[in-house]
Amino acid sequence: MSGGRTDSGSGLVWAIDLGGTNTKLGIVAAGGEVIGEESLPTRSERSAESWADEVAAALRAIGEREGVDERSIGAVGIGSPGPLSVKEGVLTNPLPNLPKWRGFPICAALSERLGKPAFLDNDANAAALSEQWLGVAQGSDNVVVLTLGTGIGGGVIAEGRLLHGFSDNAGELGHISIDHDGPQCACGSRGCIELYASAGATAERYRRKLIEAGREAETEITAEGVFEAAEAGDDLAKATFAEVGQYLGAAVGGIVHAFNPEMVVVAGGMAEAAPYFLETIRSVVKERTFPDLQAGLRIEVSPLGDRMGLLGAARLAFMAADGE
Amino acid sequence: MSGGRTDSGSGLVWAIDLGGTNTKLGIVAAGGEVIGEESLPTRSERSAESWADEVAAALRAIGEREGVDERSIGAVGIGSPGPLSVKEGVLTNPLPNLPKWRGFPICAALSERLGKPAFLDNDANAAALSEQWLGVAQGSDNVVVLTLGTGIGGGVIAEGRLLHGFSDNAGELGHISIDHDGPQCACGSRGCIELYASAGATAERYRRKLIEAGREAETEITAEGVFEAAEAGDDLAKATFAEVGQYLGAAVGGIVHAFNPEMVVVAGGMAEAAPYFLETIRSVVKERTFPDLQAGLRIEVSPLGDRMGLLGAARLAFMAADGE
Repeated sequence: MSGGRTDSGSGLVWAIDLGGTNTKLGIVAAGGEVIGEESLPTRSERSAESWADEVAAALRAIGEREGVDERSIGAVGIGSPGPLSVKEGVLTNPLPNLPKWRGFPICAALSERLGKPAFLDNDANAAALSEQWLGVAQGSDNVVVLTLGTGIGGGVIAEGRLLHGFSDNAGELGHISIDHDGPQCACGSRGCIELYASAGATAERYRRKLIEAGREAETEITAEGVFEAAEAGDDLAKATFAEVGQYLGAAVGGIVHAFNPEMVVVAGGMAEAAPYFLETIRSVVKERTFPDLQAGLRIEVSPLGDRMGLLGAARLAFMAADGE
Repeated sequence: MSGGRTDSGSGLVWAIDLGGTNTKLGIVAAGGEVIGEESLPTRSERSAESWADEVAAALRAIGEREGVDERSIGAVGIGSPGPLSVKEGVLTNPLPNLPKWRGFPICAALSERLGKPAFLDNDANAAALSEQWLGVAQGSDNVVVLTLGTGIGGGVIAEGRLLHGFSDNAGELGHISIDHDGPQCACGSRGCIELYASAGATAERYRRKLIEAGREAETEITAEGVFEAAEAGDDLAKATFAEVGQYLGAAVGGIVHAFNPEMVVVAGGMAEAAPYFLETIRSVVKERTFPDLQAGLRIEVSPLGDRMGLLGAARLAFMAADGE
């Protein structure tokens, strides 16, 4: 956090969803209405200061375009890949997405440029906030969100509060191992669920199936491509997602024993393909958890799509500005 | 919870540590001093009401023996195997230890008999409270306690508060799987850490090693026996614990990614043997977690021994009576 509490009315906030490839930004109202929004390339090879200049200018431009009085904006909310420090508002070690931005005091940088207090949290934590605010977890105080994309992130709300842990790095659920003797992961562990069910792992799984079946594998297969193939009726693509669902189910079973959530939300880029694996997750979790942990448990897909991160960043700003 | 808040001074509490085999009970002072204590067989084949009669009488007898004025006792704290309902003070489904006591309103039963408000929590949660209060986790607000015994339990303190989850069953860390394709567990999952590192699993691992080595396997090997063999210099016993440490390290790696604790405490009956596996856990966790999650992380053995559960039950009563 940087800049203390806001004095002005918190009717609107600036929201920033920082990703390794693109940064989404916008102005969001207290009811969740997006007043204006934009996406710009993050270009993480440049300096973080240059990125902050562009973001601040773009946020102001949205305000002018939409006729927003800057005095009605109470705070800035930022969701970012971790590791990061929520308390200090710093990107401590944002690997592998933003390696050159290590140590960047992102809250101070935006707060200086925009003249409002700025608040930072992990993008998956922001996702959990947005699901609880406007998505499928409304009314739930015990929520786990899994963001399935390039990597797998996790955001946990436990008894109404975001779980941060000792150094703000709780909820790294992509690095729950489902095989202690499995393939090596970048985190140092083996068999992390991220290696079985991220977008890249899904694409690679499909590519191997194509080769095994003697079908020509394009050099560049993406998870999006596997989804399109499944939509076109390709059985190998469907089988790929079914396997992904099996692995995810095993991981979610452990997550349920750890956190005893009421709601598990499947989100991120892979959520689009969830019709091909959601039921598998549900049935594996049902098979692999104590009955007491299944009572009342729901496993759902995020309805917020691309805006989930932006809305989560906005929610973060509203909550922090209100001192929640 | 049952009976609301206490009005009388909370200088002393009655504490009950209910186990499948024995029930420990005593009177504990606010500073953690055990004024008097006793252990009696739980005899879970009898009715829970009969158990409550005996426990209440034994608690009163301790008070008389120690010259305690009952008016100075503010509340009753109870630690029990789960699943249970903290809010309702009920043993919902205490399997496999107390199958006949399903649905027993333990708080109401003790509160009626003793005339004080009674408070219930999971025994591993009570263990976490006791470690934070008087043990190795003093000063830590992010604590995970693993109780290694007949089963493996978990108690999690996140940002200063016990993690309960949606239905008070969070922290079932013995059912974190380390192999999605591993042996079948009673919870329905496969490869749960409990199957690799509980007292029974440790004894069985040693038994297999003895047979492989052509040494005579006693029919009744216990984890205590493996510990004694290790103390006597038996290399197979030491190798057994080293393997247990490898598996525990893999599980703790995932737990660290999930909760980002400052302190992981190894507790329960197996803690005595920790000199034979603690360093292995530490080195595996170091190898298998992101550096940001290792910063400041400590992995230690409980110093509280047999009294951990009783002290945790007492702490629970003090906290609940104080409305914490």
